[in-house]
Amino acid sequence: MSMHKSKICFIGTGAWASALATVVSKNNHQVSMYGINELEISDINKGKNTKYFGSKLFNNPENIKATNDLSEALKDADVVVLAVPSQSIRSILKKLQEELKTKKVDLINVVKGIDEDSELLFSELIIKKFRRNVKNFATLIGPSFAVEVFENLLTMINVIGIDVNYLAKVTRIFSNDTFRLVINEEEKGSELFAALKNVLAIGLGMINFFLPSKNTHAAVLSIGVKEIYQVYKKVYPNSKDSIGYELAGIGDIFLTCSSSKSRNYSFGYKISEYGLKAALEKESKTIEGYYTAKILSKIIEKHELITPFLKSIIDVLFNKKNPYKVLDFIEEYN
Amino acid sequence: MSMHKSKICFIGTGAWASALATVVSKNNHQVSMYGINELEISDINKGKNTKYFGSKLFNNPENIKATNDLSEALKDADVVVLAVPSQSIRSILKKLQEELKTKKVDLINVVKGIDEDSELLFSELIIKKFRRNVKNFATLIGPSFAVEVFENLLTMINVIGIDVNYLAKVTRIFSNDTFRLVINEEEKGSELFAALKNVLAIGLGMINFFLPSKNTHAAVLSIGVKEIYQVYKKVYPNSKDSIGYELAGIGDIFLTCSSSKSRNYSFGYKISEYGLKAALEKESKTIEGYYTAKILSKIIEKHELITPFLKSIIDVLFNKKNPYKVLDFIEEYN
Repeated sequence: MSMHKSKICFIGTGAWASALATVVSKNNHQVSMYGINELEISDINKGKNTKYFGSKLFNNPENIKATNDLSEALKDADVVVLAVPSQSIRSILKKLQEELKTKKVDLINVVKGIDEDSELLFSELIIKKFRRNVKNFATLIGPSFAVEVFENLLTMINVIGIDVNYLAKVTRIFSNDTFRLVINEEEKGSELFAALKNVLAIGLGMINFFLPSKNTHAAVLSIGVKEIYQVYKKVYPNSKDSIGYELAGIGDIFLTCSSSKSRNYSFGYKISEYGLKAALEKESKTIEGYYTAKILSKIIEKHELITPFLKSIIDVLFNKKNPYKVLDFIEEYN
Repeated sequence: MSMHKSKICFIGTGAWASALATVVSKNNHQVSMYGINELEISDINKGKNTKYFGSKLFNNPENIKATNDLSEALKDADVVVLAVPSQSIRSILKKLQEELKTKKVDLINVVKGIDEDSELLFSELIIKKFRRNVKNFATLIGPSFAVEVFENLLTMINVIGIDVNYLAKVTRIFSNDTFRLVINEEEKGSELFAALKNVLAIGLGMINFFLPSKNTHAAVLSIGVKEIYQVYKKVYPNSKDSIGYELAGIGDIFLTCSSSKSRNYSFGYKISEYGLKAALEKESKTIEGYYTAKILSKIIEKHELITPFLKSIIDVLFNKKNPYKVLDFIEEYN
């Protein structure tokens, strides 16, 4: 199959940006990566991202050019991939607006979760703040440790949005023998699942420190998924019941909640091991689930939801509950 | 809370019978266990089940009495737990009928799956063959390695049936601080999920031999769950969409599909490692998923279902497909 080669511009030079960059470079697309850290930029221009992936090389490194010049990075880009840390999203959108002026671009968002200030999903926030510059929009969500994607280990995730033609275009750009996008049109529900699973992962980390058995893990995981589903049904009552069965649903949950490679999970584990205060001090990076839990707490209250496990995790994070007692709700569970 | 002490009769002396026996013995109920193997019986009467659990002791072993005398085992039993291998179910039901004559008992079934001859779920088969002797009926399904239950590690599973009062009674008998039953009224759907997950586990075992990455595992797990859900919706079109979110759904699937402790999973792994013929020869015990896959194949054909992953697993098991190619369907997947 002959294929139109595109230029894909990544905003961000982190682990996930680099992992996705190597995917499209494998497909022989041109890649530009915009960043602000000179060391990372020069590293990427040497064909690697040492900070996250050691000495492993990008696929076809000659396709990849990192720069701190946003205008250069954006030049002739067919698709722009937003892959910055969630706390930088507002400032980067402003920068992009200044650069693009009235020009519209095809956008792919990989920033998942709920914005603390606006309580909007990041895709909603982006659309709201950036509407003038968005031609098409899609979000990528699914089970994917960046390091495994970078190592070309088979990964399948959802490409999510409302315009199937655009989703099909994105799929053609990214999919290859080791990376597959699967179309999913349930936009908001999938992102809500993706956000809330980080809270659940913290809870599972807490529990696994005290109760490392497989039976326990599988049980509390499924109890957590059911509660996330209940939140979802309340927030989006007209959405599909089967949403959780997607890659962006249980696929993502299963990965995030089952491995110490997941930051939220290991944060929860540390809470049980060292206490909340010490665990927070040990974290140099944002623990998304921690901030999501704050917003979830408001959602639970507002909708009067009965989700004892999620509530219990929130209580450990914000109401001084002992992590050892996070499962005390099961005495009443039925 | 003071509690009426019951006598629980287990039909079977295997791992799962013993694990559940130690649960109710912990709650100080009297336990009788009916078996046919003199060595196992004398072992249990010494307080252990060496074959499965080494030198570990039952909780309150003085509550537990094993015997090869069915009449003695059944005497004054409040509840009878059917915990025999699925291939013995017909013969044991006949024996029980001869013994009980017209007497009705409260029954708990832990035999899951689909009967090959009748293509009925085992709970359906039991009700059909044994109707005369059944007062109340419940099935236990959920994430539970017997050895962890025996070791009193926290386990939560579903008690499934149509009469909530009876399910509540069973819950009171079994539940304690390390073992909880959670009521679930979706009888047939849960059992279908439980049966089909064994087929999926074989497939995941096959894949993990070639592709041991976590991304891959989480993706194919969720693709498999979605296909099981599609089978379920076709077979029971009026059932709840949320069924998969229960302990008996994804809880059980997570556990069975993620651990070499699962017999079906390790059977799949061996198929990739040694080939199907050698893997089958290595198995001294029934691989439930293997037989379920035969029946699933008929269901898929009958309902013209499009479930490429399950079909691919079936093709490895029965149509000479190379296990290395079990994921070839993803080239067309979207």
